[in-house]
Amino acid sequence: MRTFVPFDAIEPKTRLSPVLDEEERHAFARTMLADVLDALAACGQEPTVLANAAVDVDAPVSVDEQSLTTAVNDVLERTAEPVAIVMADLGLATPTALASLYDADADVVLVPGRGGGTNAFCARHPTFRVDYHGASIRDHREIANSIGATTQTVDSFRLSTDIDEPIDLAELLLHGEGRAVDWLVDAGIELQVDEGRVAVCR
Amino acid sequence: MRTFVPFDAIEPKTRLSPVLDEEERHAFARTMLADVLDALAACGQEPTVLANAAVDVDAPVSVDEQSLTTAVNDVLERTAEPVAIVMADLGLATPTALASLYDADADVVLVPGRGGGTNAFCARHPTFRVDYHGASIRDHREIANSIGATTQTVDSFRLSTDIDEPIDLAELLLHGEGRAVDWLVDAGIELQVDEGRVAVCR
Repeated sequence: MRTFVPFDAIEPKTRLSPVLDEEERHAFARTMLADVLDALAACGQEPTVLANAAVDVDAPVSVDEQSLTTAVNDVLERTAEPVAIVMADLGLATPTALASLYDADADVVLVPGRGGGTNAFCARHPTFRVDYHGASIRDHREIANSIGATTQTVDSFRLSTDIDEPIDLAELLLHGEGRAVDWLVDAGIELQVDEGRVAVCR
Repeated sequence: MRTFVPFDAIEPKTRLSPVLDEEERHAFARTMLADVLDALAACGQEPTVLANAAVDVDAPVSVDEQSLTTAVNDVLERTAEPVAIVMADLGLATPTALASLYDADADVVLVPGRGGGTNAFCARHPTFRVDYHGASIRDHREIANSIGATTQTVDSFRLSTDIDEPIDLAELLLHGEGRAVDWLVDAGIELQVDEGRVAVCR
């Protein structure tokens, strides 16, 4: 199994702009990436970062300026062995949670993201391809079915929580175990608790 | 293990008012409750509904007009055997996901809800009590620690997704397996997909 971690090195985490400025978004995104790489290493993987520009990180980096969908499909096309794709913004990922992705044995193992995305997958079928637009988890199930690939879905709150918007930072503060939590605390991001769901403030 | 399912029979799912009128919210909430009860039965439980008013449902109902926190604490106080509390709005709950709650063997097994809530727990410690205000998952961890109870957290996207707001209906449409999905489809609720996260429309 070859693991790739797509990473936007040019404009990372733009939807966090209400709480983090551009430089901070870069630093925070790299910290989450480092956490994800650590968690992958702890479950025995040797991930390659698939970035749209050079990035200084403690792992091999493959630079591909194409769109996410095209870059991932090129990886699937050129890699003879099974491929896992794990997003770089899974700030709650732990080795235990990630093991559930690698331990499942279907042709295509899918991890939905909240809001219809696909936060990670393993593909053991040579013709599986991706399309990250729209409700990609639904499309990926259909693509797998259309090529006769067996599918399995990993049920993990940790892996289904991608950190995109300010409210997602609350999940990281509540449940995170990596350096990204320390980064947020150092940046003065705090939980704001009232009667309803929590929020974050600075 | 005795399982109780708290249910608001008076003003259920008020935050769904942008898409469902009052009568619909009652019908939809009862449908999700029935799905949760079915899933519990399929993993060998015999749940009691803990409602704030009478409700017509295929399970024993215990009516308690007090607040959720007080009603649950009274259950914990008066029940000699271990207690599980499972919320009625876990529209994605499956028998497999719920089994992970019952199979864990800590004194207090917690299932976080998105946004800091506590969607379910099992308590095998006689003095564990709840407080559902604010970021309850954090408070429940602290309460368990303060009484020397061991804790375990269940990592399940299905169990951590409570259906509170219109956007949560998208998760139900994408991943639901019970009658609540059919109810939504019959009511004309559909996924709305564009480049970002999905939404629902009617």
